[in-house]
Amino acid sequence: MLIIGERINTSRPAIKKAVQERDKDFILNETQKQIEAGASMVDVNCGTSLDKELEDMLWLIKTIQEKSAISLCIDSPDAAVLKEGLRIHKGRAMINSITAEKSRYEKILPLCRDHDCLLIALTLDEKGMPETAQDRFELATIIMEICQRYGVPKDSIYFDPLVRPISAEQKQAKEFLGAIKLIKELGLKTIAGLSNISFGLPKRQLLNKAFLPMALAFGLDACIIDPLEDPLMSTLLASSAILDQDEYCRGYLNAFRQGKL
Amino acid sequence: MLIIGERINTSRPAIKKAVQERDKDFILNETQKQIEAGASMVDVNCGTSLDKELEDMLWLIKTIQEKSAISLCIDSPDAAVLKEGLRIHKGRAMINSITAEKSRYEKILPLCRDHDCLLIALTLDEKGMPETAQDRFELATIIMEICQRYGVPKDSIYFDPLVRPISAEQKQAKEFLGAIKLIKELGLKTIAGLSNISFGLPKRQLLNKAFLPMALAFGLDACIIDPLEDPLMSTLLASSAILDQDEYCRGYLNAFRQGKL
Repeated sequence: MLIIGERINTSRPAIKKAVQERDKDFILNETQKQIEAGASMVDVNCGTSLDKELEDMLWLIKTIQEKSAISLCIDSPDAAVLKEGLRIHKGRAMINSITAEKSRYEKILPLCRDHDCLLIALTLDEKGMPETAQDRFELATIIMEICQRYGVPKDSIYFDPLVRPISAEQKQAKEFLGAIKLIKELGLKTIAGLSNISFGLPKRQLLNKAFLPMALAFGLDACIIDPLEDPLMSTLLASSAILDQDEYCRGYLNAFRQGKL
Repeated sequence: MLIIGERINTSRPAIKKAVQERDKDFILNETQKQIEAGASMVDVNCGTSLDKELEDMLWLIKTIQEKSAISLCIDSPDAAVLKEGLRIHKGRAMINSITAEKSRYEKILPLCRDHDCLLIALTLDEKGMPETAQDRFELATIIMEICQRYGVPKDSIYFDPLVRPISAEQKQAKEFLGAIKLIKELGLKTIAGLSNISFGLPKRQLLNKAFLPMALAFGLDACIIDPLEDPLMSTLLASSAILDQDEYCRGYLNAFRQGKL
């Protein structure tokens, strides 16, 4: 299970402030806390910076990688930001994200090929959000074929079938789970930002931690979460043990011995 | 979701003592607490009473139903105990359980037919515990056919594909989940005692509450749980909301307003 920490996003006021004030210590602390909690990669998003997005993104990447060997998930819809970000990123980055929209992928896929980076592909096109599991699956196959044309191998792609809040569209969670299963059956990898499930409802953590085991049981390979959200990481460890992804429950038992469960 | 409370079992020392001392208040309190926490039925098991099992079972059924309209799940492998229990039980009881073993079902199925009760069928035969999802599914189809021969309709049967502890056999949880899916595809109902998953491991509640959403997402219809185990019921409410089994999240939101989440 690939865990991507989602906390470094300027839509969070504390991060926005730290980025504006070039507060390196704050950003490094946010990075370190996520790594210690179990993140294997850290997402960096400064979409709210508008005109300064490129400048802020480069500052974030430099600041984090000056002190840490962690690989980053460069999160922007803007190919220019991704291009410069990839140029300075050390190690194998991840790009968040392309869709089946030509205006987006035609600029980003050549970068992915040239930098051999990992890639998140949202199952989305010009027509908007897919409704059914089958719609999502078909978009994933279309995107896979586009990626192959651009020389981006399917093993580098994580398909995100898009979690939608049950408060707005309650049938969508089952469609999402069905999509994970269909996409996995094609031998492709899947990813999701899970906390969207609980948007607009009280006690969001309760919904998030019930949804995570479901997604894992259907085959989810990677997730974008806040690893500091209690008790998401312990739920993840328990789920991995149950699903035979943690041999002899070693990870679970180690976390228990360290008082982390 | 049918929730069966599992607390009234003489393998628990406090229940054993209460049954031995004919402590009606204790038993009624255990019943009431489970109903308030969300149980729709209550399991009664006095298997440890040995020679006194029949006498103890009849006392439990009478004691509970004297004060409560709740239906009981009469839990014994002994057809004589089930027969007398069904004779005095008010309302529609559930029998826990038959297997594909002839010595067991040939005495119990006529009782089920005559009393029109619900029935738990363990996917198990003379050869012992099934290994794979397919083994469990095949046993369920065999049992369904046997039940039809005896005039027990398939809608009355809940099939239990048997949860085994991951501490002993880690691959078994996935086989169990696969079995739920296969049995559901045949239009049959499923049930499970979920807490067995965590036997032998620390922080059992963490594993139980990760396993419950998985089983529900694969289609589980009923579960035998301790509804007082925190936070199993809130995990169940969250899962039902996610899986579109709780229209407009009403149950979830009501529980929140009542401070029960």
